[in-house]
Amino acid sequence: MVNYFSSDFKLAILGGGQLGKMMLYETRKYDIQTLVLDPSAEAPSKISCNYFEQGDLMDYDTVLNFGRRANVVTFEIEGVNIKALKQLEAEGIKTYPAASTLEKIQNKAVQKKFYRQHNLPTADFEVFQNLEDLKTAVSAGAVKIPFVWKSATGGYDGKGVSVIRKEGDLNKLSNGECIAEKLIPFKNELAVIVARNPSGEVKTYPVVEMEFHPTANQVEYVICPARINEEIAGKARSLAEKVSEAFQHVGLLAVEMFQTEDDKILINEVAPRPHNSGHYSIEASYTNQFEQQIRAILDLPLGNTDSKVGGIMVNLVGDKDHEGEVLYENIEEIMKMDGVTPHIYGKKITRPFRKMGHVTIVDKDLARARKIAEKVKNSIKVISKNK
Amino acid sequence: MVNYFSSDFKLAILGGGQLGKMMLYETRKYDIQTLVLDPSAEAPSKISCNYFEQGDLMDYDTVLNFGRRANVVTFEIEGVNIKALKQLEAEGIKTYPAASTLEKIQNKAVQKKFYRQHNLPTADFEVFQNLEDLKTAVSAGAVKIPFVWKSATGGYDGKGVSVIRKEGDLNKLSNGECIAEKLIPFKNELAVIVARNPSGEVKTYPVVEMEFHPTANQVEYVICPARINEEIAGKARSLAEKVSEAFQHVGLLAVEMFQTEDDKILINEVAPRPHNSGHYSIEASYTNQFEQQIRAILDLPLGNTDSKVGGIMVNLVGDKDHEGEVLYENIEEIMKMDGVTPHIYGKKITRPFRKMGHVTIVDKDLARARKIAEKVKNSIKVISKNK
Repeated sequence: MVNYFSSDFKLAILGGGQLGKMMLYETRKYDIQTLVLDPSAEAPSKISCNYFEQGDLMDYDTVLNFGRRANVVTFEIEGVNIKALKQLEAEGIKTYPAASTLEKIQNKAVQKKFYRQHNLPTADFEVFQNLEDLKTAVSAGAVKIPFVWKSATGGYDGKGVSVIRKEGDLNKLSNGECIAEKLIPFKNELAVIVARNPSGEVKTYPVVEMEFHPTANQVEYVICPARINEEIAGKARSLAEKVSEAFQHVGLLAVEMFQTEDDKILINEVAPRPHNSGHYSIEASYTNQFEQQIRAILDLPLGNTDSKVGGIMVNLVGDKDHEGEVLYENIEEIMKMDGVTPHIYGKKITRPFRKMGHVTIVDKDLARARKIAEKVKNSIKVISKNK
Repeated sequence: MVNYFSSDFKLAILGGGQLGKMMLYETRKYDIQTLVLDPSAEAPSKISCNYFEQGDLMDYDTVLNFGRRANVVTFEIEGVNIKALKQLEAEGIKTYPAASTLEKIQNKAVQKKFYRQHNLPTADFEVFQNLEDLKTAVSAGAVKIPFVWKSATGGYDGKGVSVIRKEGDLNKLSNGECIAEKLIPFKNELAVIVARNPSGEVKTYPVVEMEFHPTANQVEYVICPARINEEIAGKARSLAEKVSEAFQHVGLLAVEMFQTEDDKILINEVAPRPHNSGHYSIEASYTNQFEQQIRAILDLPLGNTDSKVGGIMVNLVGDKDHEGEVLYENIEEIMKMDGVTPHIYGKKITRPFRKMGHVTIVDKDLARARKIAEKVKNSIKVISKNK
């Protein structure tokens, strides 16, 4: 048996962004040796790992040669070379989540078709090879406005998703494979993180509720537990487990869902990694999502997913009018508030709506935490030094 | 005003052991730039800081030149060159805790005299310049057996402390300045961590209760909150605050105390830094001691010191029969238990009773946590690979 807590064992993480950085707090806690690959020399994970390499995550040789240095390979971002992961698996290096799982998720058109094939509830959709085909379908009345456009690849932080309300909106879209999805009127956006280890142990986190920024299409508050009744919560957790099982997923799977007006639960999309909707867990949960990810991919026993206290997460995104070297205005003000913890990802440059950090607010009383969260949101600003 | 959350600001930490390592989780969370100095090239803090230097913490020039690179200097171990800290202060570099505070604590004889001068309650004692003087005093009946011997310098993890029960025990002691302290029959050993920032904000953590290993003279369980009544807890917190004020201490001050048979509270000793008795706070408190230390020394607002849940800490010390490359036997077993988090410090070599890590057990029900803690203690073993 491999001894993970030994200098002979090495874990490779593809991607060195904020998720990788937070994962490294946990590998440091367990003294697990880590290797990180990231295209940026300024990657947030650059320190805290045992070995850092700058390189292209989509390049076959780079990923393959990097992965060969490790015993287990994982990723913190979906955009990695799957062929290289397959080759690593063929060479006996464990990659979790598996290449075959990521393959079903990386491309959103493939992901949506997977739900249809497995009778997993999701909004109706059609796939188009390029923007021209979509425009033709809209002109012909085969796709009815309004609908949701999603790019099949490259979407992140609300990019690659757009609600099309009039034909002119189509001209703002990028070209490439895409999905036209039925616009679902929903009460709530919910998410459940499922953890699964290779031995088959499965645990789900409580349902969280997401509030989106009205224009930037980014999550504004993540609230745990979601303020929904137990029946709906039970439905959401059980659907998330089914999704995880269908994908035969190992590690964390964040399942984003809609609660429709008539209380149906539909899958929106999944992320096969620690997720923004689970950041609250660092302060609120018995086992935070990053520790759980490490436990899961190393086939260690999964930790308790319950919460100690209510948690709310606010994203710290770059102010829309600022670009340049970052400054966190009023960070001292929010640190005066009870149960408030800022997390600064360490990106040097802020840009409009760029994810620069997050703030967690915990409290035994969730309603009080929600009020503090609003104060936090109205106080701190991510601006640039020389605007 | 200095902006701590900027790449222009640098924090120097003298010492790169486990305490420094855990402090670095917090500087990483805030993206604060750090420099670490440690004599060992294998120091646990070596990665996770922005700059690491190998060097002698007691060497004047090494500490001075290292400290000059930073805006604020702190330490995670008392054994650092005080003259260099004073020179850094004279040059306008903030050192917290101050050199003058550390000077009153570093030498235990000086520390004990300080309590006497300030009418702070502590066990009666006498100071001796060397072992010969002490032996003479014992022979003459001026010091009565039994008593507690403490080395004035170099004590750590229970080393440098010995209960003298018969005259022959004197022969096992090392030479050098020492204290003979009255042996106090006590009900409990308690500790309170006080946080204070340069602006004068002060917060105390709840009282913890310590159970010592019967032979190794090391803490076996740290229990928070201590199972004592509110009146005693109030007395202990208020005495700890007084001690912190007397020292004009900035940062964390861990105050170890005895609760005597007749419910008096006596100061045992203090540590001007994050402390073993506060490790439980990582999982149990709203603001863990390492985050609090960073907040305090950077003059940021102090965080909430309350607990979310009950916490118990078990030290992971090297098995008495093992020395060599370390192995954590049954770590998977304890990870199956609810609310259990192992922390592995990353020391390569285990030795009898060496502190190799700790395990925290949290639970809303402290009595249940205590039962799990015992299971933890009976399961995990720190052994060597090739015994």
